Amino acid sequence: MEKVRVIEIKESIFADNDREAERIRGDLKAEKTYLLNLMSSPGAGKTTTLLRTIEALKDEMRIGVMEADIDSSVDAEKIAVTGVKSIQLHTGGMCHLDAGMTEQGLKEIGTEDLDLVVLENVGNLVCPAEFDTGAVKNAMILSVPEGHDKPLKYPLIFTVCDALIINKIDVLPYFDFDMEKVVEYAHMRNPNLKIFPISAKTGEGVGAWADWLRAQVKGWNEA
Amino acid sequence: MEKVRVIEIKESIFADNDREAERIRGDLKAEKTYLLNLMSSPGAGKTTTLLRTIEALKDEMRIGVMEADIDSSVDAEKIAVTGVKSIQLHTGGMCHLDAGMTEQGLKEIGTEDLDLVVLENVGNLVCPAEFDTGAVKNAMILSVPEGHDKPLKYPLIFTVCDALIINKIDVLPYFDFDMEKVVEYAHMRNPNLKIFPISAKTGEGVGAWADWLRAQVKGWNEA
Repeated sequence: MEKVRVIEIKESIFADNDREAERIRGDLKAEKTYLLNLMSSPGAGKTTTLLRTIEALKDEMRIGVMEADIDSSVDAEKIAVTGVKSIQLHTGGMCHLDAGMTEQGLKEIGTEDLDLVVLENVGNLVCPAEFDTGAVKNAMILSVPEGHDKPLKYPLIFTVCDALIINKIDVLPYFDFDMEKVVEYAHMRNPNLKIFPISAKTGEGVGAWADWLRAQVKGWNEA
Repeated sequence: MEKVRVIEIKESIFADNDREAERIRGDLKAEKTYLLNLMSSPGAGKTTTLLRTIEALKDEMRIGVMEADIDSSVDAEKIAVTGVKSIQLHTGGMCHLDAGMTEQGLKEIGTEDLDLVVLENVGNLVCPAEFDTGAVKNAMILSVPEGHDKPLKYPLIFTVCDALIINKIDVLPYFDFDMEKVVEYAHMRNPNLKIFPISAKTGEGVGAWADWLRAQVKGWNEA
């Protein structure tokens, strides 16, 4: 098993999270580092999607991953195997990360030699959506077994994200999941949402997602 | 589509949630009503499991269901079709229910003619576990597609529950889900946890779960 560095992050002391998040984005811009905040339910496939994303992009850019969890370091161990820089953040029971907590992670991982850092947020469709982490963009994963009605029940996360990955399309035949409906409901919440149906297991569809992320990182770091 | 009553519940004003929860349990005991708090990730199958549970128990006891969601009333509409008393609670963005919010629901549904009330909590493995709702017992659902590592990542919810339903066993062949490991990890968090593997879709395993719940309700209401 890979040894990973585990950082216990503390709840942020900043009263004004949005201002703190803007400051972090300013620092990242100056350092030419793109931070992506990746959110989803527990078990939607954030880590497996990240492994595929790393595979697609690691020869073109220097990637770092911050795995946030309440407990365990199983995710950071899986990422460490790929050779990219990774750390495990423990939130001490907290259900989300705010800007101050994210910054603690960024300092620990060290962004000066990284083009892209992905923050894998705590598995939760509610609370993480309420806090600007300082990321350049937010992305979320909805997996086929969760059902196509999720944009109706968890509206906020669909409105704050720029990209929606629909994962586990390899099991579409075994679930009553209506792809047309989920696209309709998601665009009802956010007409500009980019939607990428993928299977992180088989690799199907990952190319289009990686293309979007590549263009994002280039646009931010070269502008 | 069934018409359902939607109640906007407000964040509780009680400083001492635990004392409030104890008071609610006292009232329920006096009224011979058993309250079950059912928790899970988004899309684990709470509503479908409830439909099966109602089917198994509705001829033996009077059942009510409180569906809690941030938005939409799709779940309460599904429950209403069964003919049991049901209401939809909207949490106004809140990620969980506390005792005071639960009591608002109980007052709206009216417990005097009900033997069993099920509170379907907001889909979230983190925050709902932190609040005693006043329920007699807590149960949770983990679904096969979420993966067997969840007790490692979300420890608290496994410790506060008395019953763990493992749903969607009909799709076990299509996922890398290790049933022995999930039982081991869950019992590591809570050695007394009763575990019920089921498929709410096919009905497999629902009998054992319904037997447990029936015994619970009888024990509480007749004691």
